[in-house]
Amino acid sequence: MKIDILSIFPEMFTGILTESIIKKAIEKQIVEIKVTDFRQYAEGKHQVVDDYPYGGGAGMLLKAQPIFDAVDAVKLPEKKPRIILMDPAGKPFNQKMAEEFAREDQLIFICGHYEGYDERIREHLVTDEVSLGDYILTGGEIGAMAMTDSIVRLLPGALGNASSAVHDSFSSGLLEHPHYTRPADYAGMKVPDVLLSGNHAVIEDWRRRESLRRTYLRRPDLFDSYTMSEKEEQWLEEIKNEEGTK
Amino acid sequence: MKIDILSIFPEMFTGILTESIIKKAIEKQIVEIKVTDFRQYAEGKHQVVDDYPYGGGAGMLLKAQPIFDAVDAVKLPEKKPRIILMDPAGKPFNQKMAEEFAREDQLIFICGHYEGYDERIREHLVTDEVSLGDYILTGGEIGAMAMTDSIVRLLPGALGNASSAVHDSFSSGLLEHPHYTRPADYAGMKVPDVLLSGNHAVIEDWRRRESLRRTYLRRPDLFDSYTMSEKEEQWLEEIKNEEGTK
Repeated sequence: MKIDILSIFPEMFTGILTESIIKKAIEKQIVEIKVTDFRQYAEGKHQVVDDYPYGGGAGMLLKAQPIFDAVDAVKLPEKKPRIILMDPAGKPFNQKMAEEFAREDQLIFICGHYEGYDERIREHLVTDEVSLGDYILTGGEIGAMAMTDSIVRLLPGALGNASSAVHDSFSSGLLEHPHYTRPADYAGMKVPDVLLSGNHAVIEDWRRRESLRRTYLRRPDLFDSYTMSEKEEQWLEEIKNEEGTK
Repeated sequence: MKIDILSIFPEMFTGILTESIIKKAIEKQIVEIKVTDFRQYAEGKHQVVDDYPYGGGAGMLLKAQPIFDAVDAVKLPEKKPRIILMDPAGKPFNQKMAEEFAREDQLIFICGHYEGYDERIREHLVTDEVSLGDYILTGGEIGAMAMTDSIVRLLPGALGNASSAVHDSFSSGLLEHPHYTRPADYAGMKVPDVLLSGNHAVIEDWRRRESLRRTYLRRPDLFDSYTMSEKEEQWLEEIKNEEGTK
Protein backbone atom coordinates (compact mmCIF):
# COMPACT_ATOMS: atom_id res chain seq x y z
CA MET A 1 0.00 0.00 0.00
CA LYS A 2 1.09 3.56 -0.66
CA ILE A 3 -0.05 6.35 1.65
CA ASP A 4 0.46 9.96 0.63
CA ILE A 5 -0.13 12.73 3.11
CA LEU A 6 -0.47 16.26 1.79
CA SER A 7 0.28 18.87 4.44
CA ILE A 8 2.01 22.22 4.75
CA PHE A 9 3.45 20.98 8.05
CA PRO A 10 5.33 17.86 6.95
CA GLU A 11 7.58 17.98 10.02
CA MET A 12 4.58 17.13 12.20
CA PHE A 13 4.88 13.56 10.93
CA THR A 14 8.55 13.04 11.74
CA GLY A 15 7.77 11.49 15.09
CA ILE A 16 5.18 8.93 14.13
CA LEU A 17 6.97 7.76 10.99
CA THR A 18 10.11 6.90 12.93
CA GLU A 19 8.57 5.03 15.85
CA SER A 20 6.65 1.93 16.60
CA ILE A 21 4.40 -0.14 14.33
CA ILE A 22 4.35 2.35 11.45
CA LYS A 23 8.13 2.46 11.34
CA LYS A 24 8.33 -1.35 11.34
CA ALA A 25 5.72 -1.65 8.60
CA ILE A 26 7.70 0.78 6.46
CA GLU A 27 10.90 -1.20 7.08
CA LYS A 28 9.14 -4.45 6.15
CA GLN A 29 7.92 -2.71 2.97
CA ILE A 30 4.32 -3.41 3.88
CA VAL A 31 3.54 0.23 3.36
CA GLU A 32 5.21 3.22 1.76
CA ILE A 33 4.34 6.54 3.38
CA LYS A 34 5.26 9.86 1.86
CA VAL A 35 4.47 13.28 3.29
CA THR A 36 4.33 16.01 0.67
CA ASP A 37 4.29 19.73 1.37
CA PHE A 38 1.63 20.84 -1.09
CA ARG A 39 2.91 24.42 -0.95
CA GLN A 40 5.53 23.38 -3.49
CA TYR A 41 2.69 22.91 -5.99
CA ALA A 42 1.21 26.37 -5.43
CA GLU A 43 1.47 28.57 -8.50
CA GLY A 44 3.00 32.03 -8.38
CA LYS A 45 6.15 33.50 -6.95
CA HIS A 46 4.87 33.48 -3.36
CA GLN A 47 3.43 29.95 -3.47
CA VAL A 48 0.26 31.06 -1.72
CA VAL A 49 -1.97 28.17 -0.60
CA ASP A 50 -4.81 30.14 1.01
CA ASP A 51 -7.07 33.03 0.13
CA TYR A 52 -10.11 34.96 1.39
CA PRO A 53 -13.61 33.50 0.99
CA TYR A 54 -15.90 34.81 -1.73
CA GLY A 55 -18.83 36.59 -0.18
CA GLY A 56 -16.84 37.74 2.84
CA GLY A 57 -16.32 36.28 6.27
CA ALA A 58 -13.48 35.61 8.68
CA GLY A 59 -10.73 33.11 8.06
CA MET A 60 -8.79 31.87 5.10
CA LEU A 61 -9.53 28.96 2.79
CA LEU A 62 -7.25 26.46 1.11
CA LYS A 63 -7.18 27.17 -2.61
CA ALA A 64 -8.16 24.50 -5.11
CA GLN A 65 -5.12 24.66 -7.40
CA PRO A 66 -2.29 23.56 -5.08
CA ILE A 67 -4.35 20.61 -3.82
CA PHE A 68 -5.50 19.46 -7.27
CA ASP A 69 -1.94 19.64 -8.56
CA ALA A 70 -0.41 17.91 -5.54
CA VAL A 71 -2.89 15.03 -5.78
CA ASP A 72 -2.16 14.75 -9.47
CA ALA A 73 1.57 14.56 -8.75
CA VAL A 74 1.42 11.82 -6.09
CA LYS A 75 -1.26 9.67 -7.73
CA LEU A 76 -0.01 6.25 -8.82
CA PRO A 77 -0.52 5.59 -12.51
CA GLU A 78 -3.45 3.34 -13.39
CA LYS A 79 -4.74 3.18 -9.82
CA LYS A 80 -7.84 4.70 -8.30
CA PRO A 81 -6.69 6.17 -5.01
CA ARG A 82 -9.03 6.99 -2.16
CA ILE A 83 -8.62 10.74 -1.67
CA ILE A 84 -9.48 11.53 1.92
CA LEU A 85 -10.28 14.95 3.30
CA MET A 86 -9.99 15.29 7.07
CA ASP A 87 -12.96 17.44 8.06
CA PRO A 88 -15.22 17.78 11.11
CA ALA A 89 -18.25 17.60 8.80
CA GLY A 90 -17.10 14.23 7.43
CA LYS A 91 -18.23 10.71 8.21
CA PRO A 92 -17.01 9.67 11.67
CA PHE A 93 -14.03 7.32 11.33
CA ASN A 94 -14.55 3.83 12.74
CA GLN A 95 -12.97 0.39 12.67
CA LYS A 96 -15.07 -0.77 9.74
CA MET A 97 -13.80 2.12 7.63
CA ALA A 98 -10.24 1.28 8.70
CA GLU A 99 -10.76 -2.28 7.42
CA GLU A 100 -12.17 -0.99 4.16
CA PHE A 101 -9.31 1.47 3.60
CA ALA A 102 -6.78 -1.27 4.44
CA ARG A 103 -7.78 -3.06 1.22
CA GLU A 104 -6.87 -0.14 -1.07
CA ASP A 105 -3.72 0.32 -3.19
CA GLN A 106 -3.28 3.98 -2.40
CA LEU A 107 -4.65 6.47 0.11
CA ILE A 108 -4.11 10.20 -0.24
CA PHE A 109 -4.82 12.34 2.82
CA ILE A 110 -5.46 16.06 2.42
CA CYS A 111 -4.71 17.93 5.64
CA GLY A 112 -5.97 21.47 5.96
CA HIS A 113 -4.67 23.86 8.55
CA TYR A 114 -6.79 26.87 7.72
CA GLU A 115 -10.45 27.55 8.27
CA GLY A 116 -11.75 25.45 5.45
CA TYR A 117 -11.33 24.27 1.89
CA ASP A 118 -12.47 25.65 -1.40
CA GLU A 119 -15.61 23.63 -2.01
CA ARG A 120 -14.39 22.43 -5.41
CA ILE A 121 -11.86 20.24 -3.61
CA ARG A 122 -14.73 18.44 -1.90
CA GLU A 123 -16.96 18.31 -4.95
CA HIS A 124 -14.58 17.30 -7.68
CA LEU A 125 -11.49 15.73 -6.12
CA VAL A 126 -12.14 14.05 -2.80
CA THR A 127 -13.61 10.54 -2.57
CA ASP A 128 -14.08 10.45 1.22
CA GLU A 129 -14.62 13.13 3.86
CA VAL A 130 -13.72 11.77 7.24
CA SER A 131 -13.96 13.13 10.77
CA LEU A 132 -11.92 11.70 13.62
CA GLY A 133 -14.71 12.33 16.12
CA ASP A 134 -16.98 15.02 17.52
CA TYR A 135 -14.23 17.42 18.49
CA ILE A 136 -12.40 20.24 16.75
CA LEU A 137 -8.72 19.99 15.88
CA THR A 138 -6.56 22.79 14.51
CA GLY A 139 -5.69 20.79 11.40
CA GLY A 140 -6.06 17.51 9.59
CA GLU A 141 -2.59 16.22 10.44
CA ILE A 142 -3.40 14.40 13.66
CA GLY A 143 -6.44 12.85 12.00
CA ALA A 144 -4.27 11.57 9.15
CA MET A 145 -1.87 10.11 11.75
CA ALA A 146 -4.67 8.34 13.60
CA MET A 147 -6.15 6.90 10.41
CA THR A 148 -2.73 5.86 9.11
CA ASP A 149 -1.91 4.11 12.39
CA SER A 150 -5.21 2.30 12.59
CA ILE A 151 -5.10 1.25 8.91
CA VAL A 152 -1.43 0.21 8.81
CA ARG A 153 -1.79 -2.09 11.82
CA LEU A 154 -4.43 -4.03 9.85
CA LEU A 155 -2.13 -4.70 6.89
CA PRO A 156 -1.02 -8.35 6.76
CA GLY A 157 2.30 -8.75 8.58
CA ALA A 158 2.26 -5.36 10.29
CA LEU A 159 1.59 -6.69 13.77
CA GLY A 160 3.28 -9.52 15.60
CA ASN A 161 1.08 -12.48 16.46
CA ALA A 162 0.89 -11.75 20.16
CA SER A 163 -0.47 -8.29 19.57
CA SER A 164 -3.09 -9.24 17.05
CA ALA A 165 -4.45 -12.01 19.24
CA VAL A 166 -5.36 -9.75 22.11
CA HIS A 167 -6.84 -7.08 19.91
CA ASP A 168 -8.99 -9.66 18.24
CA SER A 169 -10.54 -10.32 21.58
CA PHE A 170 -11.55 -6.67 21.75
CA SER A 171 -13.02 -7.07 18.30
CA SER A 172 -15.20 -9.85 19.76
CA GLY A 173 -17.81 -7.21 20.37
CA LEU A 174 -17.47 -6.68 24.13
CA LEU A 175 -15.04 -4.59 26.11
CA GLU A 176 -11.99 -6.36 27.48
CA HIS A 177 -11.90 -7.77 31.00
CA PRO A 178 -9.37 -6.36 33.51
CA HIS A 179 -5.75 -7.52 33.28
CA TYR A 180 -3.16 -7.74 36.03
CA THR A 181 0.55 -8.36 36.03
CA ARG A 182 3.20 -8.72 38.75
CA PRO A 183 3.50 -8.02 41.61
CA ALA A 184 0.46 -9.71 43.19
CA ASP A 185 0.46 -6.96 45.81
CA TYR A 186 1.54 -3.47 44.79
CA ALA A 187 1.43 -0.95 47.63
CA GLY A 188 -1.46 -2.85 49.18
CA MET A 189 -3.42 -3.09 45.92
CA LYS A 190 -4.00 -6.76 45.23
CA VAL A 191 -4.58 -8.94 42.20
CA PRO A 192 -7.87 -10.91 42.46
CA ASP A 193 -7.25 -14.36 43.98
CA VAL A 194 -8.87 -16.17 41.08
CA LEU A 195 -6.11 -15.05 38.68
CA LEU A 196 -3.48 -16.59 40.96
CA SER A 197 -5.42 -19.88 41.30
CA GLY A 198 -3.97 -21.60 38.25
CA ASN A 199 -7.45 -22.99 37.47
CA HIS A 200 -7.87 -22.06 33.83
CA ALA A 201 -11.56 -22.86 33.50
CA VAL A 202 -12.37 -20.65 36.49
CA ILE A 203 -10.10 -17.88 35.18
CA GLU A 204 -11.80 -18.04 31.78
CA ASP A 205 -15.24 -17.74 33.37
CA TRP A 206 -14.09 -14.81 35.53
CA ARG A 207 -12.75 -13.03 32.47
CA ARG A 208 -15.90 -13.47 30.42
CA ARG A 209 -17.99 -12.32 33.35
CA GLU A 210 -15.87 -9.20 33.94
CA SER A 211 -15.94 -8.48 30.22
CA LEU A 212 -19.74 -8.51 30.43
CA ARG A 213 -19.64 -6.31 33.54
CA ARG A 214 -17.42 -3.67 31.94
CA THR A 215 -19.53 -3.64 28.80
CA TYR A 216 -22.72 -3.34 30.89
CA LEU A 217 -21.29 -0.44 32.92
CA ARG A 218 -19.66 1.48 30.09
CA ARG A 219 -20.92 0.54 26.68
CA PRO A 220 -24.28 -1.26 27.00
CA ASP A 221 -24.95 -0.24 23.38
CA LEU A 222 -22.48 -2.96 22.33
CA PHE A 223 -24.96 -5.63 23.50
CA ASP A 224 -27.28 -4.64 20.65
CA SER A 225 -24.98 -6.34 18.16
CA TYR A 226 -23.77 -9.17 20.40
CA THR A 227 -25.36 -12.60 20.69
CA MET A 228 -25.12 -13.88 24.26
CA SER A 229 -24.92 -17.52 25.30
CA GLU A 230 -27.37 -18.75 27.95
CA LYS A 231 -24.60 -18.68 30.54
CA GLU A 232 -23.70 -15.12 29.62
CA GLU A 233 -27.33 -14.05 29.94
CA GLN A 234 -27.44 -15.52 33.42
CA TRP A 235 -24.17 -13.79 34.36
CA LEU A 236 -25.47 -10.50 33.08
CA GLU A 237 -28.56 -10.81 35.29
CA GLU A 238 -26.31 -11.45 38.31
CA ILE A 239 -24.10 -8.50 37.35
CA LYS A 240 -27.12 -6.22 37.08
CA ASN A 241 -28.15 -7.21 40.61
CA GLU A 242 -24.63 -6.77 41.95
CA GLU A 243 -24.18 -3.36 40.39
CA GLY A 244 -27.69 -2.21 41.22
CA THR A 245 -27.20 -2.71 44.95
CA LYS A 246 -23.93 -0.78 45.16
CA MET B 1 -1.97 24.93 32.13
CA LYS B 2 0.57 22.15 32.42
CA ILE B 3 0.23 19.06 30.27
CA ASP B 4 2.35 16.00 31.01
CA ILE B 5 2.45 13.14 28.57
CA LEU B 6 3.84 9.83 29.78
CA SER B 7 5.05 7.63 26.94
CA ILE B 8 7.90 5.28 26.15
CA PHE B 9 8.02 6.86 22.68
CA PRO B 10 8.64 10.52 23.51
CA GLU B 11 10.10 11.17 20.05
CA MET B 12 6.64 10.63 18.57
CA PHE B 13 5.71 14.07 19.90
CA THR B 14 8.61 16.01 18.38
CA GLY B 15 6.62 16.97 15.31
CA ILE B 16 3.47 18.28 16.88
CA LEU B 17 5.21 20.22 19.64
CA THR B 18 7.30 22.19 17.17
CA GLU B 19 4.58 23.16 14.69
CA SER B 20 1.44 25.18 14.49
CA ILE B 21 -0.95 26.24 17.25
CA ILE B 22 0.58 24.08 19.95
CA LYS B 23 4.03 25.52 19.32
CA LYS B 24 2.66 29.08 19.44
CA ALA B 25 0.75 28.40 22.65
CA ILE B 26 3.94 27.08 24.25
CA GLU B 27 5.87 30.16 23.10
CA LYS B 28 3.16 32.44 24.49
CA GLN B 29 3.43 30.49 27.78
CA ILE B 30 -0.26 29.65 27.64
CA VAL B 31 0.61 26.01 28.14
CA GLU B 32 3.64 24.04 29.25
CA ILE B 33 3.88 20.59 27.69
CA LYS B 34 6.34 17.98 28.87
CA VAL B 35 6.74 14.49 27.46
CA THR B 36 8.24 12.05 29.95
CA ASP B 37 9.58 8.62 29.12
CA PHE B 38 8.15 6.64 32.01
CA ARG B 39 10.71 3.89 31.47
CA GLN B 40 13.13 6.01 33.47
CA TYR B 41 10.90 5.39 36.51
CA ALA B 42 10.88 1.60 36.12
CA GLU B 43 12.60 -0.17 38.97
CA GLY B 44 15.36 -2.73 38.42
CA LYS B 45 18.48 -2.84 36.30
CA HIS B 46 16.60 -3.48 33.05
CA GLN B 47 13.92 -0.85 33.60
CA VAL B 48 11.20 -3.22 32.48
CA VAL B 49 7.82 -1.53 31.95
CA ASP B 50 5.76 -4.55 30.86
CA ASP B 51 5.09 -8.08 32.06
CA TYR B 52 2.91 -11.13 31.33
CA PRO B 53 -0.72 -11.19 32.48
CA TYR B 54 -1.69 -13.21 35.55
CA GLY B 55 -3.90 -16.10 34.53
CA GLY B 56 -2.26 -16.46 31.11
CA GLY B 57 -3.05 -15.07 27.72
CA ALA B 58 -1.27 -13.39 24.83
CA GLY B 59 0.29 -9.96 25.01
CA MET B 60 2.09 -7.92 27.59
CA LEU B 61 0.71 -5.47 30.11
CA LEU B 62 2.07 -2.18 31.40
CA LYS B 63 3.14 -2.65 35.00
CA ALA B 64 1.69 -0.50 37.75
CA GLN B 65 4.93 0.67 39.37
CA PRO B 66 6.55 2.74 36.59
CA ILE B 67 3.26 4.53 35.88
CA PHE B 68 2.45 5.27 39.53
CA ASP B 69 5.97 6.61 40.10
CA ALA B 70 6.03 8.67 36.90
CA VAL B 71 2.69 10.29 37.75
CA ASP B 72 3.96 11.02 41.22
CA ALA B 73 7.07 12.66 39.78
CA VAL B 74 5.30 15.00 37.33
CA LYS B 75 2.35 15.95 39.56
CA LEU B 76 2.31 19.63 40.52
CA PRO B 77 2.33 20.16 44.26
CA GLU B 78 -1.04 21.05 45.81
CA LYS B 79 -2.97 20.54 42.56
CA LYS B 80 -5.42 17.84 41.63
CA PRO B 81 -4.45 16.82 38.13
CA ARG B 82 -6.77 15.00 35.75
CA ILE B 83 -4.98 11.73 35.04
CA ILE B 84 -6.13 10.50 31.66
CA LEU B 85 -5.74 6.99 30.32
CA MET B 86 -6.07 6.63 26.56
CA ASP B 87 -8.06 3.43 26.10
CA PRO B 88 -10.56 2.08 23.55
CA ALA B 89 -12.87 1.11 26.43
CA GLY B 90 -12.92 4.70 27.69
CA LYS B 91 -15.51 7.44 27.29
CA PRO B 92 -15.54 8.74 23.70
CA PHE B 93 -13.77 12.09 23.53
CA ASN B 94 -15.92 15.02 22.41
CA GLN B 95 -15.90 18.80 22.31
CA LYS B 96 -17.68 19.12 25.65
CA MET B 97 -14.94 17.09 27.32
CA ALA B 98 -12.32 19.27 25.61
CA GLU B 99 -13.98 22.36 27.12
CA GLU B 100 -14.07 20.74 30.54
CA PHE B 101 -10.40 19.68 30.41
CA ALA B 102 -9.42 23.17 29.19
CA ARG B 103 -10.41 24.54 32.61
CA GLU B 104 -7.95 22.34 34.56
CA ASP B 105 -4.55 23.29 35.99
CA GLN B 106 -2.83 20.08 34.98
CA LEU B 107 -3.53 17.16 32.68
CA ILE B 108 -1.46 13.98 32.77
CA PHE B 109 -1.83 11.61 29.81
CA ILE B 110 -0.81 7.97 30.19
CA CYS B 111 -0.02 6.42 26.80
CA GLY B 112 0.22 2.67 26.59
CA HIS B 113 1.85 0.90 23.71
CA TYR B 114 1.33 -2.68 24.81
CA GLU B 115 -1.77 -4.79 24.97
CA GLY B 116 -3.22 -3.27 28.07
CA TYR B 117 -2.63 -1.88 31.53
CA ASP B 118 -2.42 -3.48 34.93
CA GLU B 119 -5.93 -2.87 36.25
CA ARG B 120 -4.63 -1.14 39.38
CA ILE B 121 -3.62 1.82 37.19
CA ARG B 122 -7.26 2.22 36.17
CA GLU B 123 -8.69 1.57 39.60
CA HIS B 124 -6.42 3.59 41.84
CA LEU B 125 -4.61 6.20 39.78
CA VAL B 126 -6.55 7.33 36.73
CA THR B 127 -9.33 9.93 36.93
CA ASP B 128 -10.54 9.65 33.31
CA GLU B 129 -10.45 6.88 30.73
CA VAL B 130 -10.88 8.34 27.29
CA SER B 131 -11.24 6.85 23.82
CA LEU B 132 -10.56 8.86 20.68
CA GLY B 133 -13.29 7.03 18.77
CA ASP B 134 -14.52 3.60 17.74
CA TYR B 135 -11.29 2.48 16.12
CA ILE B 136 -8.17 0.73 17.34
CA LEU B 137 -4.82 2.49 17.48
CA THR B 138 -1.47 0.88 18.27
CA GLY B 139 -0.89 3.17 21.22
CA GLY B 140 -2.18 6.09 23.22
CA GLU B 141 0.22 8.64 21.75
CA ILE B 142 -1.88 9.85 18.83
CA GLY B 143 -4.88 10.10 21.14
CA ALA B 144 -2.91 12.27 23.55
CA MET B 145 -1.87 14.45 20.60
CA ALA B 146 -5.46 14.86 19.42
CA MET B 147 -6.73 15.71 22.89
CA THR B 148 -3.84 18.11 23.52
CA ASP B 149 -4.47 19.89 20.22
CA SER B 150 -8.19 20.20 20.76
CA ILE B 151 -7.78 21.37 24.39
CA VAL B 152 -4.91 23.81 23.80
CA ARG B 153 -6.76 25.64 21.02
CA LEU B 154 -9.52 26.41 23.55
CA LEU B 155 -7.15 28.08 26.03
CA PRO B 156 -7.60 31.87 26.09
CA GLY B 157 -5.16 33.51 23.68
CA ALA B 158 -4.17 30.32 21.87
CA LEU B 159 -6.00 31.12 18.65
CA GLY B 160 -6.01 34.35 16.69
CA ASN B 161 -9.37 36.13 16.46
CA ALA B 162 -10.01 35.26 12.85
CA SER B 163 -9.69 31.56 13.53
CA SER B 164 -11.90 31.46 16.58
CA ALA B 165 -14.68 33.36 14.84
CA VAL B 166 -15.12 30.80 12.10
CA HIS B 167 -14.92 27.86 14.42
CA ASP B 168 -17.58 29.41 16.62
CA SER B 169 -19.88 29.26 13.65
CA PHE B 170 -19.30 25.50 13.50
CA SER B 171 -20.12 25.37 17.18
CA SER B 172 -23.49 26.96 16.29
CA GLY B 173 -24.85 23.44 16.09
CA LEU B 174 -25.06 22.94 12.32
CA LEU B 175 -22.42 21.93 9.81
CA GLU B 176 -20.70 24.73 7.92
CA HIS B 177 -21.89 25.91 4.52
CA PRO B 178 -19.57 25.54 1.51
CA HIS B 179 -16.77 28.05 1.06
CA TYR B 180 -15.08 29.19 -2.14
CA THR B 181 -12.03 31.28 -2.85
CA ARG B 182 -10.35 32.57 -6.02
CA PRO B 183 -10.36 31.94 -8.92
CA ALA B 184 -14.07 32.17 -9.78
CA ASP B 185 -13.48 29.56 -12.47
CA TYR B 186 -10.90 26.85 -11.83
CA ALA B 187 -10.54 24.38 -14.70
CA GLY B 188 -14.22 24.87 -15.56
CA MET B 189 -15.40 24.43 -11.95
CA LYS B 190 -17.27 27.59 -11.03
CA VAL B 191 -18.07 29.47 -7.84
CA PRO B 192 -21.86 29.91 -7.36
CA ASP B 193 -22.97 33.25 -8.80
CA VAL B 194 -24.60 34.36 -5.57
CA LEU B 195 -21.21 34.57 -3.83
CA LEU B 196 -19.94 36.95 -6.52
CA SER B 197 -23.06 39.15 -6.33
CA GLY B 198 -21.86 41.43 -3.56
CA ASN B 199 -25.38 41.33 -2.03
CA HIS B 200 -24.64 40.44 1.57
CA ALA B 201 -28.20 39.71 2.67
CA VAL B 202 -28.63 37.25 -0.20
CA ILE B 203 -25.22 35.68 0.52
CA GLU B 204 -26.10 35.29 4.19
CA ASP B 205 -29.37 33.55 3.30
CA TRP B 206 -27.63 31.25 0.84
CA ARG B 207 -25.07 30.30 3.49
CA ARG B 208 -27.66 29.50 6.16
CA ARG B 209 -29.64 27.48 3.64
CA GLU B 210 -26.59 25.48 2.52
CA SER B 211 -25.64 24.94 6.12
CA LEU B 212 -29.08 23.43 6.68
CA ARG B 213 -28.71 21.32 3.53
CA ARG B 214 -25.35 19.90 4.53
CA THR B 215 -26.58 19.13 8.02
CA TYR B 216 -29.71 17.47 6.60
CA LEU B 217 -27.68 15.32 4.20
CA ARG B 218 -24.86 14.35 6.57
CA ARG B 219 -25.72 14.84 10.20
CA PRO B 220 -29.50 15.11 10.62
CA ASP B 221 -28.96 14.06 14.26
CA LEU B 222 -27.66 17.59 14.91
CA PHE B 223 -31.18 18.97 14.38
CA ASP B 224 -32.30 17.26 17.60
CA SER B 225 -30.44 19.83 19.65
CA TYR B 226 -30.95 22.81 17.34
CA THR B 227 -33.81 25.30 17.52
CA MET B 228 -34.83 26.42 14.03
CA SER B 229 -36.32 29.78 13.13
CA GLU B 230 -39.53 29.81 11.08
CA LYS B 231 -37.54 30.75 7.99
CA GLU B 232 -35.14 27.91 8.55
CA GLU B 233 -38.00 25.46 8.92
CA GLN B 234 -39.38 26.59 5.59
CA TRP B 235 -35.96 26.30 3.94
CA LEU B 236 -35.53 22.83 5.32
CA GLU B 237 -38.85 21.76 3.78
CA GLU B 238 -37.69 23.13 0.42
CA ILE B 239 -34.33 21.36 0.77
CA LYS B 240 -36.05 18.06 1.54
CA ASN B 241 -38.07 18.42 -1.66
CA GLU B 242 -35.02 19.38 -3.70
CA GLU B 243 -32.91 16.51 -2.40
CA GLY B 244 -35.74 14.02 -2.59
CA THR B 245 -36.18 14.52 -6.32
CA LYS B 246 -32.51 14.08 -7.23
